[in-house]
Amino acid sequence: MKRLMVPGILLMVITGNGISAAFAGDAAPTALSNKEAIDLVQTHANFLWTLVAAALVFFMQAGFAMVEAGFTRAKNTINIMMKNLMDFSIGSLGFWAIGFGLMFGVSKSGWFGTSGFFLSDFTPDGDPWVLAFWMFQVVFAATAATIVSGAMAERTKFVGYLCYSLVLSALIYPIFGSWAWGSLFNGSGWLEGFGFIDFAGSTVVHSVGGWAALAGAMVLGPRLGKYDKDGTIKPILGHNMALAALGVFILWLGWFGFNPGSTTTADKSIAMIFVNTNLAAATGAIFAMAVSWFKFGKPEIGMSLNGALAGLVGITAGCANVSPSSSIIIGAVAGVLVVFSVLFFDRIRIDDPVGAISVHGVCGAWGTLGAGIFNMGGTSVKIISVQLLGIGACFVWTFAAAFIMFKLIEKVVGLRVTPEEEMEGLDLTEHGGTAYPEFGVSSYGGMNTGIPSDARGNEALVVNTGLTPVGEKV
Amino acid sequence: MKRLMVPGILLMVITGNGISAAFAGDAAPTALSNKEAIDLVQTHANFLWTLVAAALVFFMQAGFAMVEAGFTRAKNTINIMMKNLMDFSIGSLGFWAIGFGLMFGVSKSGWFGTSGFFLSDFTPDGDPWVLAFWMFQVVFAATAATIVSGAMAERTKFVGYLCYSLVLSALIYPIFGSWAWGSLFNGSGWLEGFGFIDFAGSTVVHSVGGWAALAGAMVLGPRLGKYDKDGTIKPILGHNMALAALGVFILWLGWFGFNPGSTTTADKSIAMIFVNTNLAAATGAIFAMAVSWFKFGKPEIGMSLNGALAGLVGITAGCANVSPSSSIIIGAVAGVLVVFSVLFFDRIRIDDPVGAISVHGVCGAWGTLGAGIFNMGGTSVKIISVQLLGIGACFVWTFAAAFIMFKLIEKVVGLRVTPEEEMEGLDLTEHGGTAYPEFGVSSYGGMNTGIPSDARGNEALVVNTGLTPVGEKV
Amino acid sequence: MKRLMVPGILLMVITGNGISAAFAGDAAPTALSNKEAIDLVQTHANFLWTLVAAALVFFMQAGFAMVEAGFTRAKNTINIMMKNLMDFSIGSLGFWAIGFGLMFGVSKSGWFGTSGFFLSDFTPDGDPWVLAFWMFQVVFAATAATIVSGAMAERTKFVGYLCYSLVLSALIYPIFGSWAWGSLFNGSGWLEGFGFIDFAGSTVVHSVGGWAALAGAMVLGPRLGKYDKDGTIKPILGHNMALAALGVFILWLGWFGFNPGSTTTADKSIAMIFVNTNLAAATGAIFAMAVSWFKFGKPEIGMSLNGALAGLVGITAGCANVSPSSSIIIGAVAGVLVVFSVLFFDRIRIDDPVGAISVHGVCGAWGTLGAGIFNMGGTSVKIISVQLLGIGACFVWTFAAAFIMFKLIEKVVGLRVTPEEEMEGLDLTEHGGTAYPEFGVSSYGGMNTGIPSDARGNEALVVNTGLTPVGEKV
Repeated sequence: MKRLMVPGILLMVITGNGISAAFAGDAAPTALSNKEAIDLVQTHANFLWTLVAAALVFFMQAGFAMVEAGFTRAKNTINIMMKNLMDFSIGSLGFWAIGFGLMFGVSKSGWFGTSGFFLSDFTPDGDPWVLAFWMFQVVFAATAATIVSGAMAERTKFVGYLCYSLVLSALIYPIFGSWAWGSLFNGSGWLEGFGFIDFAGSTVVHSVGGWAALAGAMVLGPRLGKYDKDGTIKPILGHNMALAALGVFILWLGWFGFNPGSTTTADKSIAMIFVNTNLAAATGAIFAMAVSWFKFGKPEIGMSLNGALAGLVGITAGCANVSPSSSIIIGAVAGVLVVFSVLFFDRIRIDDPVGAISVHGVCGAWGTLGAGIFNMGGTSVKIISVQLLGIGACFVWTFAAAFIMFKLIEKVVGLRVTPEEEMEGLDLTEHGGTAYPEFGVSSYGGMNTGIPSDARGNEALVVNTGLTPVGEKV
Repeated sequence: MKRLMVPGILLMVITGNGISAAFAGDAAPTALSNKEAIDLVQTHANFLWTLVAAALVFFMQAGFAMVEAGFTRAKNTINIMMKNLMDFSIGSLGFWAIGFGLMFGVSKSGWFGTSGFFLSDFTPDGDPWVLAFWMFQVVFAATAATIVSGAMAERTKFVGYLCYSLVLSALIYPIFGSWAWGSLFNGSGWLEGFGFIDFAGSTVVHSVGGWAALAGAMVLGPRLGKYDKDGTIKPILGHNMALAALGVFILWLGWFGFNPGSTTTADKSIAMIFVNTNLAAATGAIFAMAVSWFKFGKPEIGMSLNGALAGLVGITAGCANVSPSSSIIIGAVAGVLVVFSVLFFDRIRIDDPVGAISVHGVCGAWGTLGAGIFNMGGTSVKIISVQLLGIGACFVWTFAAAFIMFKLIEKVVGLRVTPEEEMEGLDLTEHGGTAYPEFGVSSYGGMNTGIPSDARGNEALVVNTGLTPVGEKV
Repeated sequence: MKRLMVPGILLMVITGNGISAAFAGDAAPTALSNKEAIDLVQTHANFLWTLVAAALVFFMQAGFAMVEAGFTRAKNTINIMMKNLMDFSIGSLGFWAIGFGLMFGVSKSGWFGTSGFFLSDFTPDGDPWVLAFWMFQVVFAATAATIVSGAMAERTKFVGYLCYSLVLSALIYPIFGSWAWGSLFNGSGWLEGFGFIDFAGSTVVHSVGGWAALAGAMVLGPRLGKYDKDGTIKPILGHNMALAALGVFILWLGWFGFNPGSTTTADKSIAMIFVNTNLAAATGAIFAMAVSWFKFGKPEIGMSLNGALAGLVGITAGCANVSPSSSIIIGAVAGVLVVFSVLFFDRIRIDDPVGAISVHGVCGAWGTLGAGIFNMGGTSVKIISVQLLGIGACFVWTFAAAFIMFKLIEKVVGLRVTPEEEMEGLDLTEHGGTAYPEFGVSSYGGMNTGIPSDARGNEALVVNTGLTPVGEKV
């Protein structure tokens, strides 16, 4: 904490006064030439922007938590909050220990890095940029992990979820990431070596999350009561549309860190990325609403909210290399696509409570293709081919790796709760709590969030205010 | 996405290292003189600040959504979320296509601009500042639009609302904006030419929103049951004070982008603007609470929250040209004013569910006057006269234009839902959904948010989780 | 508001173009040497970062409000929102009038400053850094005040709370702050003179809040029904875990302003502070969850959320002088400590509804000690001794001053509501409102949030939508 200095009666300051203060932590400020000093101020701006953007992307965790909770039932709210808290927490440690090194370390094989684990190659005397860069990357890794949470909501065992979070953040995501953004092999990751365009991660982050979600939803199977034996698809209503909408606004905000922050540089190029991000989101929301209106007779909120997210996911790959007009087209297509995709996966009985596979997997693939089609520098069969190669490589790697992972988790610790637990709700059975003990929750969907009776004993342990558990004596 | 480079075993980086990286996207970095390089770094800081501020102002959409939903009934929550999502989305496209050109394009007539539509005069090779500036302006345009939403809540037809959103963002707001901030005619907009002071938009944004809200509330008429035939005013309680308060905190945060961001320059002047903004908000909350305590016998939450917003609206015009002490006075007056104004409009039977007319219209006018009275450079009859001229011009233009617009919308697509729809709630009738299907909502205020029975058929279509609608077969 | 200039048909701009625009508000830009110009750009970056960080810290008020409301009962929600709104509002004015001068003014005695009240020693022509610095400091002062709110929730008289808020922000906090960060006496505050390490306020902010909370909870006594006569501790469930989790995410975000913003300088050092802050939070959450799982048989949400906060509080002192690996250890210990501390205070019958004493007081002390133990520059008996001295001085001063203050408030205006009011809920009795009038709230915990009957008259006045009170005639 810097202090104000007070000579005489007028308050004055030692900080805020430019370079001498700011340079105090840097080596040998006095020896700086003007050119070096200018360079250093720009570097400071780059640090500042990258870290502020990281903070915005971090906040997307709250957005995902609100969207997911809003779109699912009240009896699983605690579980969803715990999953979002923990995938970020465990993901942070996993990416610190392993993932960052796999993704950005030196690569001998060309398939993943093998240095930089535990930030170990960073010394306190070294350039702290690696820390700023790590901070920006860890929030991306956690985003990929949290996407899966929604598709697997309301039926996944908590301990299985923790295992999957760690593996995705520490292994599956960074390995694909190293191909597109990361480890050096002949000068770049192999996919980037071909010229693959994915500026902020339509494929690297969102499709990885989306295809892992697909694998997870397939291994888990649908929620009880979702698909009747006679073939009817039963809607399972989300319990709080205000939270869901809040979540989408938070995510939209976070994307202003996600996309323009991916410059990791404070320069003029971030302006177009902001504009493209915003226009695609707006158009995605409008088109998804329009399609829902046409198909269902009403402008539907779930589709409209997912339309905004679809537009955001779609523009993520091309935000720095397509024009604002093109970003509108990319957003519009994403908005239409997401509605049909959600209906499609429902029709083939893959139960995705929040539409994560469609929003992140399908629209991530579309956005990556769109980044090639609408490339401001022109497009070509080669460019499109490389984009398709990247999209395909992402699907093959992620789906296969995640499918195997989920099968292993299923074997070793279990992936799905029992039908009784699912009916009761994961809040009570997995966490011993209830999210809304005072709101008279209806029994819709097998809900049971009443205060557990004393007779339940330990199983009904309710401790969710950080307080002494029921029945403990002093 | 920039990458880390890894020479040897120590992690190093290509970005974060100052100017060479940051300047890579700019023309001819090697040719820059020191003076030009310093200029460029400052320009980068200006871009950064303007865009981060735009992100904060964007987030105000979430704030407005939470305040409006919190202050109204549960049966209209989805409708409110959809309105806020869509006024920003449609406003973004409308301001891109038309509004920005009207407001900031070349003006031949002196009354509006006629170039720059669709950002068409911007070329990718041109200065991207226009994109940063557009991004900052579009969130302002959307703020004006969303203000109206609250005053017209719980009874407006959704399709009518969409029409109004587009017209306000693309026509009414930018035309007034061009007078005060925008299009050039003899060097400035005509109102600005007189020396009109409205730094961040007490009049340009908030009063425009407030007077359009007044026109809308008058054309619509009050909610059913609000004013009894015997003259009693019946309070219609908001359904969630936690959300309302969250919304006010979000708005307060967003105002730290709204006011100081209006410098569009990262310089020392933003410090006083931050301080003034904060002091006026704090004082507004305290004074509104005190007045409510005195008048009603209790410190009331709705008035207190609106008091904070009143202070924020009030300081918006003068935040850069009044002292911190003056900002306290401006906030205090706004806090008192908002309470009496809310009671006044209720007494003349203009039903404004959230107090938007008072907060944004009335306190916007007060703030504009206050910016003249407390001008640090001194005040004069001329200054006050110009402020009053601007306040009056805003009222005449906005109220008249909005009144005509709402009347036209009423004729063409309809502005108000039927009494049956209003009783049932707009969530179900306009969007086929229910925001809280599991919370046992009481029948207060004609509420009906239970799960629709199968017998209702399509009208009761509930699809609000992005899922297949009821009854669809595979 | 700066405008676009439009020469010919191409849109161009007067701002965004670097130094000439940015320097317009500064003295004599033409006379600047390159060295001075570079210095000025860095100064602008310092202003920008300090103020953006202040905005993030401001947003922590929303986080505290959500956590506190989520962890307590629905019948006190309005009260909690009002407390959080008002402690920031009153705190802002109190810190402007008195606190800032006490903390950072000239100190003759060595115990507090005696200049700079009402920002009076600042002239508009002076360096605006003092305003930026004030803005950053006021949000810290308000943080200390709001911490106490949670520990005293559900039973404190509103008017007593307002008194306490003012005294803490204007006297208790700034006086201790002057010892560690502030007023100059022989070159520094006396505690800082010994070399006390508390970079962002584990002790200065969090322990001050925590120990004041302890005094408040002791003077108030426990909530009705919390501790049965037979010695049983009865859990009183929080009413909304989604809000509580949202609050923790907001706080985590805000801490990215709180810790790295405490540099008040945009330089490279913020990168490590971001990383340390994030790693400690993540580890705190994981360890608290693990301990709760081990002790209660389930991974409990209240403890896990508090674990994240514990980690954040813990790393606050040492975030700039410990390594990322050490921050993991500090976070882990904080995560374990918070669980046992919560249980301990419950066992000795000090009722802290949200765990504020443990999170902020205990983990603040631990973090301050940890900053000495894991100091990157090495540790020593002297360093540890000074840290312990600071921890002890904070406890003695804060607990004693706060205890006396609460006793005085109890005598003069009253500190605790009546048992009847407590049963009824503070929303109705203190604010004449109900936070959720439509949700069928169960009678759990003496809850009564139904619409008050007409027979109640003024006592049941419900005015919480900013509207005319019940029964007023036109």
